[in-house]
Amino acid sequence: MNEKNIGEQMHDWAYDLFPICRSLTGDGVRLTLTYIKNLLPDLKILSVPSGTQAFDWKVPNEWTIRDAYVLDESGARIIDFKVHNLHVVGYSEPVDQWLDLEELNKHLYSLPEQPDAIPYVTSYYASRWGFCLTDRQREQLKPGLYRAVIDSDLKAGELNYAELILPGQTNDEVMLSTYICHPSMANNEISGPCVTLALALWLKSITNRHYTYRIVFIPETIGSIVYISRNIEHLKSRVKAGFNITCVGDDRCYSYLPSRKGDTLSDRVALHVLKYIDPEFKRYGWLDRGSDERQYCSPGVDLPIATIMRSKYGEYPEYHTSLDNLDFVTVSGLSGGFNALKQAILLLENNLQLNATVLCEPQLGKRGLYPTISTKNSGELVRAMMNLISYCDGRSLLDIAEIIDEPFEKLLEIMAPLINNGLIKATRSL
Amino acid sequence: MNEKNIGEQMHDWAYDLFPICRSLTGDGVRLTLTYIKNLLPDLKILSVPSGTQAFDWKVPNEWTIRDAYVLDESGARIIDFKVHNLHVVGYSEPVDQWLDLEELNKHLYSLPEQPDAIPYVTSYYASRWGFCLTDRQREQLKPGLYRAVIDSDLKAGELNYAELILPGQTNDEVMLSTYICHPSMANNEISGPCVTLALALWLKSITNRHYTYRIVFIPETIGSIVYISRNIEHLKSRVKAGFNITCVGDDRCYSYLPSRKGDTLSDRVALHVLKYIDPEFKRYGWLDRGSDERQYCSPGVDLPIATIMRSKYGEYPEYHTSLDNLDFVTVSGLSGGFNALKQAILLLENNLQLNATVLCEPQLGKRGLYPTISTKNSGELVRAMMNLISYCDGRSLLDIAEIIDEPFEKLLEIMAPLINNGLIKATRSL
Amino acid sequence: MNEKNIGEQMHDWAYDLFPICRSLTGDGVRLTLTYIKNLLPDLKILSVPSGTQAFDWKVPNEWTIRDAYVLDESGARIIDFKVHNLHVVGYSEPVDQWLDLEELNKHLYSLPEQPDAIPYVTSYYASRWGFCLTDRQREQLKPGLYRAVIDSDLKAGELNYAELILPGQTNDEVMLSTYICHPSMANNEISGPCVTLALALWLKSITNRHYTYRIVFIPETIGSIVYISRNIEHLKSRVKAGFNITCVGDDRCYSYLPSRKGDTLSDRVALHVLKYIDPEFKRYGWLDRGSDERQYCSPGVDLPIATIMRSKYGEYPEYHTSLDNLDFVTVSGLSGGFNALKQAILLLENNLQLNATVLCEPQLGKRGLYPTISTKNSGELVRAMMNLISYCDGRSLLDIAEIIDEPFEKLLEIMAPLINNGLIKATRSL
Repeated sequence: MNEKNIGEQMHDWAYDLFPICRSLTGDGVRLTLTYIKNLLPDLKILSVPSGTQAFDWKVPNEWTIRDAYVLDESGARIIDFKVHNLHVVGYSEPVDQWLDLEELNKHLYSLPEQPDAIPYVTSYYASRWGFCLTDRQREQLKPGLYRAVIDSDLKAGELNYAELILPGQTNDEVMLSTYICHPSMANNEISGPCVTLALALWLKSITNRHYTYRIVFIPETIGSIVYISRNIEHLKSRVKAGFNITCVGDDRCYSYLPSRKGDTLSDRVALHVLKYIDPEFKRYGWLDRGSDERQYCSPGVDLPIATIMRSKYGEYPEYHTSLDNLDFVTVSGLSGGFNALKQAILLLENNLQLNATVLCEPQLGKRGLYPTISTKNSGELVRAMMNLISYCDGRSLLDIAEIIDEPFEKLLEIMAPLINNGLIKATRSL
Repeated sequence: MNEKNIGEQMHDWAYDLFPICRSLTGDGVRLTLTYIKNLLPDLKILSVPSGTQAFDWKVPNEWTIRDAYVLDESGARIIDFKVHNLHVVGYSEPVDQWLDLEELNKHLYSLPEQPDAIPYVTSYYASRWGFCLTDRQREQLKPGLYRAVIDSDLKAGELNYAELILPGQTNDEVMLSTYICHPSMANNEISGPCVTLALALWLKSITNRHYTYRIVFIPETIGSIVYISRNIEHLKSRVKAGFNITCVGDDRCYSYLPSRKGDTLSDRVALHVLKYIDPEFKRYGWLDRGSDERQYCSPGVDLPIATIMRSKYGEYPEYHTSLDNLDFVTVSGLSGGFNALKQAILLLENNLQLNATVLCEPQLGKRGLYPTISTKNSGELVRAMMNLISYCDGRSLLDIAEIIDEPFEKLLEIMAPLINNGLIKATRSL
Repeated sequence: MNEKNIGEQMHDWAYDLFPICRSLTGDGVRLTLTYIKNLLPDLKILSVPSGTQAFDWKVPNEWTIRDAYVLDESGARIIDFKVHNLHVVGYSEPVDQWLDLEELNKHLYSLPEQPDAIPYVTSYYASRWGFCLTDRQREQLKPGLYRAVIDSDLKAGELNYAELILPGQTNDEVMLSTYICHPSMANNEISGPCVTLALALWLKSITNRHYTYRIVFIPETIGSIVYISRNIEHLKSRVKAGFNITCVGDDRCYSYLPSRKGDTLSDRVALHVLKYIDPEFKRYGWLDRGSDERQYCSPGVDLPIATIMRSKYGEYPEYHTSLDNLDFVTVSGLSGGFNALKQAILLLENNLQLNATVLCEPQLGKRGLYPTISTKNSGELVRAMMNLISYCDGRSLLDIAEIIDEPFEKLLEIMAPLINNGLIKATRSL
C-alpha cells in the first residue's frame, strides 16, 4: 500500500461515505460504521440505549429522517433534502404545514456573506424544525404559501460507535479517535474517518507494533463522553499518547492543536513531525479547541490527546457549509493528513532511550562508519551522527531530535549502523 | 461609599493633611495620626523612645520646628517656613545669625532646572541647617546681610506610628503599609495615607473578610525597621500578601514595583489587576526600589510586599518639590489608586481553588446556563465559561485568570452560577 | 608580572614554539613539552606506549619526520619541508619515487580560494603520503618528472603529554587543558599552550589558592581520550570547573563555546566575564564544538569544561593554513585571551556565598560607608552597594552579579568594606 495509492483509496472511501446523512444517532451512523467494518472486519460496533447516563449527560433519542422538502403553491419541491442532506436542520421534529413566506422565513437558515453555500445547522437539545438553503435560493422566494414537510421522528433508540483494538508488544496504548456524526461535509468530517481507516489498515500490516492501538469511531461530544464514561479507568492507566483525527483532507495548510497540558508526548511528537513537513504549520492553543479533546483532556480525564490537522475547523470559509465538499478535500490533501499522522506514530514506535556504550567519542573510522564517498552531504551526515552520539546519555530519540534539530527519520537511519556496531544501546524507558 | 464619593472624600482628607509639617518624628506625625484615628477609632497609636535599638539602627531624637525664616537688612521675611514648610531643611539644627549673601548661599537649596519649585531637603543623620527656595526667589537675593533664624530643637523624645488590625476568618494576614513622614507634598506622600484610610474604612465595612488585615501608618525607613523589629516573628508567620501604599494620587499612569522575590502572591495579584486597569502600566524592577519594600523584603525578613502606584517616586518631575501638590494629585487620580488596591484585595479574598465536580464537560443547556439572549457578547461569555471550567483542576482563580487571559472579576461572575449549580467546588488551599 | 609584560612574554614563547613540527606523537611534542617544563619545573611529562587501549581508541604509532621535499628534473627543491613544516601531510608514510605531474598532483593539496596559503592536512588513521603548497606555487608546476622524497617513519613508540598540579586549600579542582599537536600555526594552536603557561605561572604566584589547579598539555582528541581514561574517577569526583584553552591569540573578537550541559559553573563564569570584556562576544552552541570538550563533556564523562576563545577554530579564514601565523596572533591578542581566562579564574576563586548579618538594611552612614565625596559615580556606587546587600541571602557573588548586572570585580571592591564591617558574611558553600 504505497502513499499515492492510499491517497486515491481514501478519496474513494470519502466519495462513498460523503452522501450518507449522518447525525449523532440513527441509520446514517450505522451505515457509515458498517461500511468501515467491511474494510476492517475486526471492528466492534457497539450501542448504548437512549437515556443512558454518561457523567453529566444522557444519551439522546435516536433521530430518523426519511424525507424533508418545501413545496410552493404549484407543488414544486423548491427545497429538497434528497438533493442535499444539509437542507434539513439536524434533529428537526416532524412537520407538515402550510405557511406564508414570513412564517416560513422563521424556519430558514442561509448565509448572506456566502450566497452559494448551504449552511449546516443542528438543534440537538431544543425541539425545533427548519430548512437550510443558499442565500441565492432564498432571495428567489416570492410571497405566497408554502408547504413545509419533514418526515422524521425522534424516539428512544440507541447511540452507536465502533472500536478496534490492535494489540502490540505492550499494554501501553496509543489512541486514535475520529467522529462520524456530520452529514455531507468533507474536511469536517469525512476526511477524519477515511484517514483513520487508512491508518488502521497500515497499523494492521505492521507485525511488531510496540504499542497497542485503540481506534475509535464515535459521534462527536456525546460519543466521546459515552466512550470515556465506559472506559475511563482503562484509558487513564493505559493511554500514553493519542490523536483526535479531524479536518485532515484539504491542501491549504497543516495545523496543530495541543492537549490541555500542552507538553505531553503526543504534543511533542506532533510538533516535531509538523515542523519538518511544513515549517509554516499553524499552531493553535488550547483556547482554540473545539472537538473531542474537550472531553479527552478535561480535568480528571486528562488523556494525552493532541490534534494534527490540515485546515482547522472554524478556520476556513467552507467550514460547516455545503462548500466543504470533495473538491475542497483532495487526494493530496488526504495523503498529507495520513502521512503526518503516520509519521507521528512511527516516531512513537521508535522513540527509544539511547545510551552510548563507550566513554568519549567512539572511533568511527576503524568501523567504516564514515561515509566512504565524500559528497556535499557526507560532512553534514557525519556532523549529525556525532551530534546524535554526543547526546546518547539516556535521552530519547525525540529528545535528541529536538536538541540537534534534525528530523527523527534521518536520525533513525543514522542510528541503525551505530546500534549494529554496538556503539549505542537503545532501550524502552519503563 | 461609592467610588466617586470616596475620591472626593480622599481629596478632602488630603487637603486637611497636606499643610502639616511632618518629619520622621514630632508633632507633625502625631497630628497626622490623630486626624486618621478620628476617622478610624480602632487605630492604635504607638510610640518608641529615642535611642531604642532596631536591628542596625537607633530611633533618632525628636525634631521640633516652631519657626524658620530669613530676614533681609530691612527686616522683611524673604524666606518664611510659615508660607511653605518645605522652606526649611528637615531636621535643621537651631540657628540665629547674621550672614552675608556668600555665607548664606552655603545654606540655600534651589533647583535651577525647575525655577518655580521649592526642593525638599532633609538631613536626618548629619547636623546641619538650611533653607530651600525657588530658584527665581534665589536669583533676586542681592549682596548684603541676612539674618537666618531657625527655632527648632532636636532632643530625646519618641517615634510614633499607628496600627489597625481588622480580624478575618483566618489568622492569615494581608498587610497594608503607608508612611507619614513627609511635609507638604501630595503624591509622595499624602496620597498614601488617604488611600490607605479609605481602604481601611472599606475593609471595615466588609463583614466576612477571609484575611485579617494589618494596616500600618509609619515614618518611612526607620519606621518600617522599628515596626519589623517589634513584630518580625508574627509578620513572617502570618503575612501572606501585602502592599506598600505610596504615590497613589496622580492621573498620569499606573506603576508596579515587585517584591524582592518578584513572584509572590502579591506580585501576581498586582500584575493581574493592573493589566486590566491599564495595559500600558509601567513595570519597574527590584533594582528601581526606593521605599519600605527595601526593609519588608530584605534578606531574612522576606515579606511578600509588592507596590501598586500611579506615578512612581523619582519618576515624575514634581517629585520631592513643592510642585507635588493638590493640583497634581486629583480626585480621579486618588480614585484610580484606591480602586487598583481594592481590586487587588478583592482578588486576594476571592482567590479560591476550583475543582470541576463532573468528568468531561458539563451539560450547561439543561441547566439554562447558556445565555438566553444571543448577543455579540454571549458567544464570548460561553467561551470564557468553558475555558474556566476546562481549568478547574485544583488551580486557583488567579491561576486560571492568567492562563485564559480574562479579568478575575469577569470570572467571579461566571463562577457564581457554576458553583450554585454544583458544577464547580471552590475551596481554600491549606 | 603585569599584563603588558605577560603579553610580550607570551608572544616570545610563541615565537620560540611556532617553528617546531608537532604532531600527535613524536619529537615535536617532546621538544614543546621540554620547553614548557623549563619554565614550569614542576611539570610532569608522561608517556603512554603505542597500542595502549583508551576506551574505544588505541594510541597510534609514533611518527618521525626527518625531511620531505619534491625535486624537479633539475634537482631543485621546489617544495621543501625545511622551509615550512606544513608542506608535508601529517603522518605521511615514507616515499622516494619519480612521478610525472599528473601522478604527483594526486598527492598535492592547495587552496584555490586562498592562493597564498599552505593548507594543513593530516592523515592520522589512513596510510598516505602528500605535500601541501600554496595554489600559486602549484600553478607554476610544469609537466615533467618530479622526485618526491619523504624521510619519515611510523613505528611503535609513545604518546606524550604533561600535567601540572597546583594544590589549593581544597581538593576541589579547576582544570585547564590545552593541546600541543599542531605544527607551525599560531592561533590554533600555539596561542593555547602560551596562554596556559602564563596562567600556570600566575597561579603559582598566588599563595592562597582556594582550588587545586590541574593543568594539562596534551595532543588533541587522542590525548584527551588517553588522559580521561587514566584519570576518570578522579576527574569526575574533583573537577568543579575548567576550560579548554585554544585559539586565544588574535585580536578580532572574543568567543564562547559551552559545555555540553551548557549551564555549569564554568559556563556561567565564562559568560559573565566575556559580557564585560566585550558585550559583542560571539556565543556558539554545543553543536559548533570541535575540540577536546567533545571528550571532556561526552556522556558519562560529563566534566564541566567550557571554552573561552578569541576567534574560534573554523571561523576565521586563516584557520588551518600557513596564514595562521605570528602576524595574526599578537601581543594584545594573547593578552586579551590571558586576561579573559584570568578573570574567569578570579571569579571562581572569589565566588563566595554571601549572607547579610543584620535584618533590614544596615545603617551605612554611621560606619562611613557612604562615599564621602559626592561625584557622579558615587550615587551609582551606593546603588550597587545597596543592590548587592539586598541579595545577600545565601546567593553567591556570581548569582548576585548576574541579577544586578554588575561586573564581579566591582562587587569585590564593594564587598570588602562590608565584610570588614561585619555587615556581610562570606562563606564557601559545601
